Order: sequence, then structure tokens, then C-alpha cells
Amino acid sequence: MAQKVGYIGLGLIGAPMARNLLKAGHEVVVHNRSRGIVDELVSEGAIEAYSPAEVARQVEVVFTCLPDSPDVERVALGPDGIIEGAHEGLIHVDHSTIKPESAKLIAEKLGEAGIRCLDAPVSGGDIGAKAGTLAIMVGGPHETFEAVLPLFKATGKTITHIGESGAGQAAKACNQIMCAAQMVAMSELLVLAEKSGADPEKVIEAIKGGAAQCWTLDTKPQRIFAGNREPGFKAYMQHKDLGIVLDTARTYGASLPVTAVITQLFEAMLQNGLGDLDNSAVLGILEMMSNTKVGP
Amino acid sequence: MAQKVGYIGLGLIGAPMARNLLKAGHEVVVHNRSRGIVDELVSEGAIEAYSPAEVARQVEVVFTCLPDSPDVERVALGPDGIIEGAHEGLIHVDHSTIKPESAKLIAEKLGEAGIRCLDAPVSGGDIGAKAGTLAIMVGGPHETFEAVLPLFKATGKTITHIGESGAGQAAKACNQIMCAAQMVAMSELLVLAEKSGADPEKVIEAIKGGAAQCWTLDTKPQRIFAGNREPGFKAYMQHKDLGIVLDTARTYGASLPVTAVITQLFEAMLQNGLGDLDNSAVLGILEMMSNTKVGP
Repeated sequence: MAQKVGYIGLGLIGAPMARNLLKAGHEVVVHNRSRGIVDELVSEGAIEAYSPAEVARQVEVVFTCLPDSPDVERVALGPDGIIEGAHEGLIHVDHSTIKPESAKLIAEKLGEAGIRCLDAPVSGGDIGAKAGTLAIMVGGPHETFEAVLPLFKATGKTITHIGESGAGQAAKACNQIMCAAQMVAMSELLVLAEKSGADPEKVIEAIKGGAAQCWTLDTKPQRIFAGNREPGFKAYMQHKDLGIVLDTARTYGASLPVTAVITQLFEAMLQNGLGDLDNSAVLGILEMMSNTKVGP
Repeated sequence: MAQKVGYIGLGLIGAPMARNLLKAGHEVVVHNRSRGIVDELVSEGAIEAYSPAEVARQVEVVFTCLPDSPDVERVALGPDGIIEGAHEGLIHVDHSTIKPESAKLIAEKLGEAGIRCLDAPVSGGDIGAKAGTLAIMVGGPHETFEAVLPLFKATGKTITHIGESGAGQAAKACNQIMCAAQMVAMSELLVLAEKSGADPEKVIEAIKGGAAQCWTLDTKPQRIFAGNREPGFKAYMQHKDLGIVLDTARTYGASLPVTAVITQLFEAMLQNGLGDLDNSAVLGILEMMSNTKVGP
């Protein structure tokens, strides 16, 4: 059933998700700080709105996909925020990756204004967003999850209700531990291959079919061997997400020694001006450490 | 074309590989230190031999799958070793995971006795060995690789010629970096899920379809949630393999900060008497560090 929905935050993940909602036949009201992508989506059938409140006022479900916790708090709770567009039946779904504690706070404050909330971070990158095959991890009341599920099916493939508010973000933090580990492990093994004289491309071909198989080895090496460091998923966002992981670990009392070291390698990317590259470009830090260069 | 081949070292990986060679119609001469598995394979059609030399003497290709570098050096080069069974056309294929430098030494010494050699470590665990779907990474002359390829097809799926002697072992070291990283990342994320109140089973379901997807998340969580810590791949073998990785890194000059920390976590398993458990039981060390328990 076609619905009128809103999408705020039309970045590398948000824009293709909004597009998939349009393609599924929904009316989509969009808002974004920078204009270019808004014009594009309007030309494809979306409706423009000039503030989060204005989006919220005219839709049944408003999605957000923003960089970090303070952005979502501002767009949800700030002046001209979603909270000012509150009306009977409105649901806010946040696809951003933010702190579980921040998701809980937003759900509580919007809840007081009568807005039901889901934290629903995604995984699968720009590729998954375009293909509509994202993994969506959802926290919030089960009834609200059921209400939004048909819309999730337009943008995601694996859609899981994890638990109460914040649980979606906790699951995403868990997800980031594995993604970052794969990225750094790939970098370390490429450096070892290069240094030991085993052709890195052949090594990847050999190992990707065995117990080392993973999304990262399936998708990133071709970019790397082609010398392509374009995002994808920007390294500074990976660094931001790892900050959420370690903050969550500190909040709930979890000791994560390997994730801590991995975070420092992404910190080194930022300190070397590599934050705008793809997260797979963490290879550059490992190359620097071993004074080598993998591939072209 | 049926061949007469030998298999020395009938452990968790070697025994099912020997079985798959039998099933493919080859005559298989077997030798192993402990007797039980030899009797089993003989009852399935294998022929017993009482030393590596005796195996080598009567076959075209002799496979070994042994725990560590000194074991392979002893079986290949020691008294009653393969070298004493040298004859025209004999090929030695080592499926063990050992140091690249050790593989080079063995190939050199056996080569002087007229035996052609391949280092051909495998990945895919007991599951892959039974299913005949192992990844096989091969180092050695291309002509020798071509000669053995039909036999490899009885035990493996992804069969890659990486380069000269030792290159198969270098690739396997690279493989172990990724496998161990996945195992520890899974442990850290399970601990974070447990501590933050997100149901670990639901978190795994949610993330295994996205960018975190990997062999480890596909195969290990069901064992873990069932409380099953049986190997699989024993933790002390993982620890041994990581020792090879760091030794290779030192030999060729590669800096592997994350693999170094991961190795210490497997060291902690050994120090806590957990070396005979599955490598996924490294979770126990992360649980201990965060004073928690994931699942049942």
C-alpha cells in the first residue's frame, strides 16, 4: 500500500534509500542541507520540504539518515525539528549510526510528544543501499516495527527486530566491530603477501573461498588493486562508528582489546589526511608502517 | 585416472582428505602415528604402511598433513622419512601449515634426492575437509602443480597456484590473519551485545547478512549458542599458525599490530588450559576480560 513518507539526510546511503522508496510507489517528501541531491530526487518524483518539521507535518513515517548523534538529536529535537511536526500516528525511523544512549534519549523525548520511534541503523554500504539489500537492525516497540516493516522491505533484505529502543544501535555497534576487523585484517594480510613475495591478487583469489571468506574480501580487493580509494564508506565515518563502539563498550562495561587497536589505525588515517578515502584505504597506514606498497 | 597415492598424518583434516581420495577411486597408502584411524581407513579400502619411507616407495604422490614445521621436516627428511623412499617421478605434497622458510628448505632437500615438491596448505576446517571443498594454496613449480591438480580436485574446490616454493605457505599465513581476526571480532561483538542487553542471537541474525558477513559468522555461532566448544580447529593450532604468521612477518619485515594483539588472546587461551577447545572458544578469554558470559 502506497504511503506518504519523509526522508531527511540524502547522503551516500540516504539518497539511494529514498530512491528505492520512490520506486516502490510511495510519495516521498525530502529534506537535505545541501541542495544538489534534493533537485535530483525532485526530478525523479520526490517532493521538497524546507525543514524537518515541515517534512514530519505531512507524512506518516519520517526517516532520517545523518552522520552522527548530535545531528540526529538536532534534526529530531531542535528548532524546526521533527518534534515540531508531531501529529497523530507519526513514526520516526532513524537509519543513522549513533550511540545507543542517544537513540534512547530521542525515543523518550519524541515519545513525550506522541511520536513513536525506531532506531534502525543499516549495513551493506552504498552498494547495498542502491540494490535495496541493506541489513536493517531495529530497536523499539514490536508494534511500531510491524507497522514500518512493509517500508523496510523496499530498502532492505535482512530486517531484524533486535529489542527495545537502542538495541538496533547496539547491534550496529557489534556489526562495526566485525566490519572494521575485516578491513584491517585484509590490510595486514595484503602487506604480508607483498612483503613475502606472494602475489597479493593470487593470495586473495586463493583464500576468499575458504574459512577467510567475507564480504570485505568479496568486494574490496578489486577496488584496491585498481588503485581506487574512492568511498564507498568514508574512513572518517568508520572512525566515528568505532568511537560509538568504544563509547558503548565503556557505558556497558565491555573490554574490546582488538577493536581498540583497530580504532587507533583509523585514527592514524585521520591524522594523515586520509579520512575522506574509502575505509579500505586503512591499507595505507599498514603500508606506511611496513614501508611498502601493495599492488599498483 | 586412478593413481596410487600416499597419505601421512590422518588427523581432523588429513583423515577426511584421505577418505575423499579413496572415494575418487585412487589407491591410498596410509601411515599415522596413532593406530585407530589407520584401522578405520584400512576397513574402507586403504593400504597400511609402517613408515613414511615405505609409503613413498610405493606411490606416485605422497601427501602429508602434520601439526607443525618440525613434524614435516622429520617425516620428509628424517630417518625412515620420505627422502628414503625417493624414486623416479615421486612428488611430495604437504598440506600442513608450516613456515614458508621450512617449506623452502624441504623442497630444496627433497629436490636434491629427485623428489618434486609442492607446499599446499588448506583452509576450510574439518567441515571443508569432509565436504571436499577445501581451499588449497599451492607453492612450487607450475608443472608439478599441473601434475597434481586432478588429485587436488578430489579434496578441494578453490585450488590456486600462488607461486614458487613457500608461496603456498605465505598465502596460508595471510589466510590465518583473516580467520583469527574474524574469530576474535565475533567474540568481542558477542560480549558487547551481551553487556549492552541486545540479544546476541538476534544480533548475529541481523548482521550476518550485511557487510559483516563472513564464514565465521555463518558457521560458528550455532556451535557457540549450543554451548559446544568441541573442535573444529583446535585453539592451540590457531595459536601455532599465528606464531608462523608473526615469524613470517619478522622474516620478511611486515608490521602487523592487530594480528599481534589477536595472537596474545590465543596465548591467553593456552595459559588458561583452553588450547584443546575450538578456536571459537577464544570467546572465553573475552568473556573473562569483561566478566560476563554470552548465551547458555
